[in-house]
Amino acid sequence: MPLPDSSAALNLLKPSVRAAVAYTLEAPIVARKLNQNEAAVDVPEDLKREILARAAALPWHRYPAFAPAQLSAAIAERHGWMADGVLVGNGSNELIQAALSVSVAEGAVVVAPAPTFSLYRLLTGVLGGRYLPVPLGADFSYDMDAIVATSNRERARVIVLNSPNNPTGSALPDGAVARVLAETDALVLCDEAYQDFGGPSAIDLLHQSARVVVLRTFSKAMGMAALRFGYALAHPDIAREIAKAKLPYNVNAVTLVAAEVALVQSRRFAERTRAVVVERDRFLPRLRTLPGIRVFPSAANFVLIRCEAVPAKVIFRRLIEEHGILIRDVSGSAHLAECLRISIGTPEDMDAVFGALRNILA
Amino acid sequence: MPLPDSSAALNLLKPSVRAAVAYTLEAPIVARKLNQNEAAVDVPEDLKREILARAAALPWHRYPAFAPAQLSAAIAERHGWMADGVLVGNGSNELIQAALSVSVAEGAVVVAPAPTFSLYRLLTGVLGGRYLPVPLGADFSYDMDAIVATSNRERARVIVLNSPNNPTGSALPDGAVARVLAETDALVLCDEAYQDFGGPSAIDLLHQSARVVVLRTFSKAMGMAALRFGYALAHPDIAREIAKAKLPYNVNAVTLVAAEVALVQSRRFAERTRAVVVERDRFLPRLRTLPGIRVFPSAANFVLIRCEAVPAKVIFRRLIEEHGILIRDVSGSAHLAECLRISIGTPEDMDAVFGALRNILA
Repeated sequence: MPLPDSSAALNLLKPSVRAAVAYTLEAPIVARKLNQNEAAVDVPEDLKREILARAAALPWHRYPAFAPAQLSAAIAERHGWMADGVLVGNGSNELIQAALSVSVAEGAVVVAPAPTFSLYRLLTGVLGGRYLPVPLGADFSYDMDAIVATSNRERARVIVLNSPNNPTGSALPDGAVARVLAETDALVLCDEAYQDFGGPSAIDLLHQSARVVVLRTFSKAMGMAALRFGYALAHPDIAREIAKAKLPYNVNAVTLVAAEVALVQSRRFAERTRAVVVERDRFLPRLRTLPGIRVFPSAANFVLIRCEAVPAKVIFRRLIEEHGILIRDVSGSAHLAECLRISIGTPEDMDAVFGALRNILA
Repeated sequence: MPLPDSSAALNLLKPSVRAAVAYTLEAPIVARKLNQNEAAVDVPEDLKREILARAAALPWHRYPAFAPAQLSAAIAERHGWMADGVLVGNGSNELIQAALSVSVAEGAVVVAPAPTFSLYRLLTGVLGGRYLPVPLGADFSYDMDAIVATSNRERARVIVLNSPNNPTGSALPDGAVARVLAETDALVLCDEAYQDFGGPSAIDLLHQSARVVVLRTFSKAMGMAALRFGYALAHPDIAREIAKAKLPYNVNAVTLVAAEVALVQSRRFAERTRAVVVERDRFLPRLRTLPGIRVFPSAANFVLIRCEAVPAKVIFRRLIEEHGILIRDVSGSAHLAECLRISIGTPEDMDAVFGALRNILA
């Protein structure tokens, strides 16, 4: 049976949506998966068992808690903030979406460095906002002068700062968020998905300005990408407004239990994070010994390289086909010609990547 | 330490958001929970065990599937539709949000019957759309003439039809959605969260018009509210656009496994649904024998009553305090003065509700 014609229905959708490019990811199955900045190893078995035992005892036919008070209190305590300034989300992406939804009206300006995480541009487009990318400077460091100047000139409603920045690894300089708050009138969304791995946090600024919102995730350092958990920290008055754009019961009951258990065990996750940082700081200098690539500084659990001898696409393909290693080809993005992003995995993973790159670049 | 002043930050948020009333729910803990139209009993133990065993074997540090192909295919097969016309969501609410996000620009008109599920109005407000409620008719039946006339007069961009309708229980008459598609130019979102319990489905109309989008959930008949799973069926061209407003990796890996297992076992869930329908059809006539309440027809797993002798708020409180029964007080909503909504639970639950109401109304 043929499909009905879709042109009339498509015409009912927003032009900004139809013009937007969907988020996609091609992911062949390989031995070493270093393309999504996930944790190097799985959640420890004993924690999985504890979480699943608690999940088994839950009534699955009941909605999860409307506002998970105990979990919000644990998160607040972790960061020296207040529980009614905590919002939990189905991954931090959902909270980025909610924060943009309540602030970006048709035509509102959103400023962010470029390149950065592609979701900000996508969501701004869906909301009908105007997305203004400000190029990062030398070695992909933040150009704070340009961010402040552009924001003021264009009367930015929102500034999004991802630090460490995906996919470049750049961390904001100390004091940068305080400066942006002092010198602009915008709402400043600080996406700290990778902050556990390095660079300053904006969390202390919550005590000084209600215009800062900090986003965190359990998908990276906490190693729970499969379960989808993130949270936002904001002034309680702002959190209350952002909550209006968040769906009720958005975090499933199993994930709420997992987040509670993970917070109790946060010291174990912190140890794992330190190991990733140690491995990154071992891997980067080794990588710099290889010919034909430029290695950018990284404060995150990944590293960006620029391929100067062999084309990035060739290296990307050969890593998959000859070495069973999947990294991220970001070379198609503006500002990222010939660039590849490599997540930091286990020491064995990184030895394999180093050996493979040495072989390909030889 | 005092909080910083929030007025400048609040002024950066959309007026439509600040004017919106947040979704809230007060839920004291009682023996019989009949306030959220959840399934009467938990997912069978053997299914929980199978799901959790599969969940234990998953790598939790990895993101869930970008597009869960096997699950989408199983859903498509269930409904005689195509896999690329299936979108999975973190509850159907997320897909309602995505569908409205891609279609409701600033000032766009959204028509829905009133009273209905409150989320439609809330999301339309956040998006800056204009929400036009069309009152239901006698006994809360759908007034299709008024819905069509209002939609055409106001040039509605979207019409939202929830059938059976929450909180009234009304089902659309046969042919109603076909008529709305034929007589208006709007996108028609059919929220069929309760359709397993009665009334017609709009799914067959997918073959005739690309302007219809059907939403389903696993939170009601499938009894998995805790896990958050829903899906949308749409023309592939429309599904592709709605997907742009959906976050990547939005459904966690445990829930994806649970949905797969539940679909394989769908016959068992269908039996449970039949039992709920039997209990509803036993409970309603008994309820009609009680003095001082009006009982509205219901095709759902809940029933709406209007209290004509004792005030609704008194009945609501006495059910909690004297009988340990929590139902939903909807009497504060427009069109629902003195109304209460009662979910259909187990036969024992409904015997208890009947006895308690008889006692209170005597």
